Amino acid sequence: VKDKPIGIFDSGLGGITVLRSLLEKFPNESFIYIGDLARLPYGNKSPDTIRKYGEQILNYLNKMGTKAVVIACNSASTVFLGEDSYNGIPLFNVIEPGANLAAKTTKNNKVAVMSTTATMKAHAYKKELLKCNPNLLVEEKATPLLVPLAEEGWLHEKITKDIIQKYLNEIELKFDTLILGCTHYPILRDDIKNCLSPDIMLIESGDALAINLDEKLKLLDLKSTDSNHRTIQILTTDLTEHFETLAHNLVKPYKINSFERITL
Amino acid sequence: VKDKPIGIFDSGLGGITVLRSLLEKFPNESFIYIGDLARLPYGNKSPDTIRKYGEQILNYLNKMGTKAVVIACNSASTVFLGEDSYNGIPLFNVIEPGANLAAKTTKNNKVAVMSTTATMKAHAYKKELLKCNPNLLVEEKATPLLVPLAEEGWLHEKITKDIIQKYLNEIELKFDTLILGCTHYPILRDDIKNCLSPDIMLIESGDALAINLDEKLKLLDLKSTDSNHRTIQILTTDLTEHFETLAHNLVKPYKINSFERITL
Repeated sequence: VKDKPIGIFDSGLGGITVLRSLLEKFPNESFIYIGDLARLPYGNKSPDTIRKYGEQILNYLNKMGTKAVVIACNSASTVFLGEDSYNGIPLFNVIEPGANLAAKTTKNNKVAVMSTTATMKAHAYKKELLKCNPNLLVEEKATPLLVPLAEEGWLHEKITKDIIQKYLNEIELKFDTLILGCTHYPILRDDIKNCLSPDIMLIESGDALAINLDEKLKLLDLKSTDSNHRTIQILTTDLTEHFETLAHNLVKPYKINSFERITL
Repeated sequence: VKDKPIGIFDSGLGGITVLRSLLEKFPNESFIYIGDLARLPYGNKSPDTIRKYGEQILNYLNKMGTKAVVIACNSASTVFLGEDSYNGIPLFNVIEPGANLAAKTTKNNKVAVMSTTATMKAHAYKKELLKCNPNLLVEEKATPLLVPLAEEGWLHEKITKDIIQKYLNEIELKFDTLILGCTHYPILRDDIKNCLSPDIMLIESGDALAINLDEKLKLLDLKSTDSNHRTIQILTTDLTEHFETLAHNLVKPYKINSFERITL
């Protein structure tokens, strides 16, 4: 079991930022990534539609024999919140670790969250943050243009800065900690940082998640000890060159072993 | 058969601009609109995935007894190009009428097309335009941020103007006619017009399509003569308040009779 791969999924490209973070932190682990490109994005869809898609992917990964699954998508994490396994396989979402880390990080007890519409409407981060510390003030802001901006690849452009600034201006709270509540947003990390004063802390889901995953794998004695045979497999429900190119760039210096198209 | 409804479909909101145009031009006709919100958008997906989704919708509309179907989505029109019926039901796409109208409109024989990535990659407009007039010069430009901008509702904003201007600046051709090659784009009509010199002609699919549809319905003796019982039904594969609100606004002054969720 120890040498089985870890499953990870997202609707599209965003989860690759989480994969990148895990590749660095778990040098012995193999990964199977599923990107549901045929139905992306999830962030503007309803909870039960997202749930249905998520379960189809989880069933697929379970059949492939993954030892644990990371939901590398905030919108999908929202509908699986509080569930720490699925059909017996340990399940990890990106919201709880991000909320925990933000609650520990903030000094003025004011936390802002940028996310998709689906994550915002579910108040997923707010609920988790208040569980950690009921005294926190939390403002959630849906920023739906950031996903297509990241996918378009308009990094370090004035328009990108203007859009981020417009969204930030609409947040009233004087936060000192900002959660990037969508796994696409780390692609725009530099542009977001440039719009913020340097004392504001940015919280990314991937980094926070890696700590939780490491603890749990140790606890369950599931950490791989084989450092020579890591594989990185990417499965998608649709294939586009654009996605392959961007995915290769995002995981650098690591190398993806295979891209394959699947039907769910 | 005459009093049966006309089917119309799109992945989401864009096709509502075509519906609006048809409601005005066909006061006696009833319409069933299907919006595939659970899998939107289509514009960044591969042709065979779009084809599969389109056929599922066409089969559904055929079962409901529509007398004709309008594909109110350029990305879906691309994969059904040249097919004038589906299982015996007359089929209309938005590309051929738009290309025909543009070919007739241009005076300097230079036509530009703004569209999604899927439509651009298929060169659907270019092929149709050159069929009409092989002397035309055509430049196609993918403008993927315009769909989420329209859905976000950022009309008459500086950022919207900047994004449109950036895309327009990347077109080299000195065109006198610009095709809005995505049914979402008429939502941004005013913003696009403001970025263009006033002598440039804008071609919208909905208007061009209405002329073709009218001719064909007359030819097949399928025009409804019942002016008292028009119904406008909207079916979607997902339901969100945001979509309902925007759809209601876009069809004004006409009134949608029902919204219903379906599974394809």
